[in-house]
Amino acid sequence: MTDLPKRVQINEEGPREGFQIEKTAIPTQRKIQLIDALSQTGLKQIQVVSYVNPQRVPGMADADEVVAGFTRQPGVRYTALWLNKTGFLRAVAAGKLDVSGTLSLTASERFLARNQGRTLAENIAAQHEMATLYKMNKVPVRRASVMSAFGCNYQGDVGVADVLDQVRQLLEIAQQHEFRIEVLSLADTMGWATPLAVKRLVGAVRERHPELAVALHLHDTRGMGIANAYAGLEMGVSIFDAAVAGLGGCPFAANKGAAGNVCTEDLVFMLHEMGIETGVDLDRLIEVAFLAEDIVGRPLPGSVKAGGALDVLRKRVKEARQ
Amino acid sequence: MTDLPKRVQINEEGPREGFQIEKTAIPTQRKIQLIDALSQTGLKQIQVVSYVNPQRVPGMADADEVVAGFTRQPGVRYTALWLNKTGFLRAVAAGKLDVSGTLSLTASERFLARNQGRTLAENIAAQHEMATLYKMNKVPVRRASVMSAFGCNYQGDVGVADVLDQVRQLLEIAQQHEFRIEVLSLADTMGWATPLAVKRLVGAVRERHPELAVALHLHDTRGMGIANAYAGLEMGVSIFDAAVAGLGGCPFAANKGAAGNVCTEDLVFMLHEMGIETGVDLDRLIEVAFLAEDIVGRPLPGSVKAGGALDVLRKRVKEARQ
Repeated sequence: MTDLPKRVQINEEGPREGFQIEKTAIPTQRKIQLIDALSQTGLKQIQVVSYVNPQRVPGMADADEVVAGFTRQPGVRYTALWLNKTGFLRAVAAGKLDVSGTLSLTASERFLARNQGRTLAENIAAQHEMATLYKMNKVPVRRASVMSAFGCNYQGDVGVADVLDQVRQLLEIAQQHEFRIEVLSLADTMGWATPLAVKRLVGAVRERHPELAVALHLHDTRGMGIANAYAGLEMGVSIFDAAVAGLGGCPFAANKGAAGNVCTEDLVFMLHEMGIETGVDLDRLIEVAFLAEDIVGRPLPGSVKAGGALDVLRKRVKEARQ
Repeated sequence: MTDLPKRVQINEEGPREGFQIEKTAIPTQRKIQLIDALSQTGLKQIQVVSYVNPQRVPGMADADEVVAGFTRQPGVRYTALWLNKTGFLRAVAAGKLDVSGTLSLTASERFLARNQGRTLAENIAAQHEMATLYKMNKVPVRRASVMSAFGCNYQGDVGVADVLDQVRQLLEIAQQHEFRIEVLSLADTMGWATPLAVKRLVGAVRERHPELAVALHLHDTRGMGIANAYAGLEMGVSIFDAAVAGLGGCPFAANKGAAGNVCTEDLVFMLHEMGIETGVDLDRLIEVAFLAEDIVGRPLPGSVKAGGALDVLRKRVKEARQ
């Protein structure tokens, strides 16, 4: 009926996505507590901080302390986000992270202007600079990313042809620096995607570039996150970014509210119930979702932590029958 | 790529699903206000009350007053729920509702025992009694329903074969009373469904009974509601129950919380963005979602009311370019 993947890789982005948006200051120790708790769930990749300008993102001012403080677990990759040379060099200097480079473009000129103060041409030039820097530092580059690949609050709808053009440029940049891109991440940065749009775009990308694994970075701004992930699965996507408890969003901020990534435990729940492996212990992950809620001090949007996992109920039913 | 329906019918159940679960008493006038507001959105069917025992469901004690109070709009069907003869006769006596009968079974023996105090055999007998009653009152019966068709908190997983057996029995009951079932509703009463389970069950039902239109009643207990609706669409389902703002749930009640139906405005958003007509004015519906939140006095789970519709942004982008 459908050709779903047997196994899915989840890149947990809760610590980074979540803490950069929270308005009240979160103590460094509690950020570390969350990362260490996530490390015990079976998640294989955790993005712990972004090295960005603390003037612009005060919630990440303690990035160095957070990275210094968490305890590495074997088998887990710990990543960070940066947007420029300064950030990258901080990540390298930390000496504790799994540093790899991502080449990133955005299909939306206007978002680029607002988010990073760059034109499309300047952004391409910046990617060349970063690629040169990665080469010099012997940092691998296997991943390319297209931001706002489905639509943009400042630009409107983004067409499949525009995204394919960004992908072409990303691959050209990689080739010039002798990097081989293996994973292409499509980001629904502002929550414009629907399942049908996911199918169309992923289908077009896979048809043009069958050699690339497609990853999805889905924001749940309009409640489509899980449905979009399912549509991705049906198109063979097996790599997803997600944030525990849906960290990163502000569900009660009406139209002003950004929303977080698709919720990790809801995604894991769906995958496991459909027989798809993740390596994650769902019960432990739900406990971490409650911890995340306790840390930010407000209700977070994840549903499975409220509704409960089904294996608990199955066990109860079985016991009642004995 | 997929064979999605061109048009979807939505049965709004917010007033019934929502007000029967709220713990604090909602004034009758505000219930009427919500129904009248929903009547202005383009929704073609609204379930306004359930005629149930006020001892068991205090929130529905004023059902007669609510029905007396709302203003019928042309082109809108106003329905009610009942579980027995007393309830049905109250619905008929109201003289204002679109009364039609539904034959209903449940795949879960244990849920039946807890919810209605009946065995499977007693439930079949009860459906025969109701069918006789409908016949006597010249009430049409075109719809049959299987409750907890995907799983049950008291019974565990429900197999496709069990549901097909319930469907067979429903059709036999209908036939004996010379009713022709046109719509089969599959209810995920306790939020056990995943998109894959929806595809399997709807596929099996449609293969066995191609003459039946399938409707889905999806609870969003574990955040799968919209994804399950999408999976249903891909299987040709074009009738959905939904509740404005996700009314009926209690998202912050941890494991004790039931959750409401899939949220109407989130569903309408997805449908419109995928080019599927509903006849609903999304902007008006979002306003009603805020009204619902105001009426129950707590945040409700719908996402689009927080994230905002996209047509507003498209218009803004277009104006900025002129």
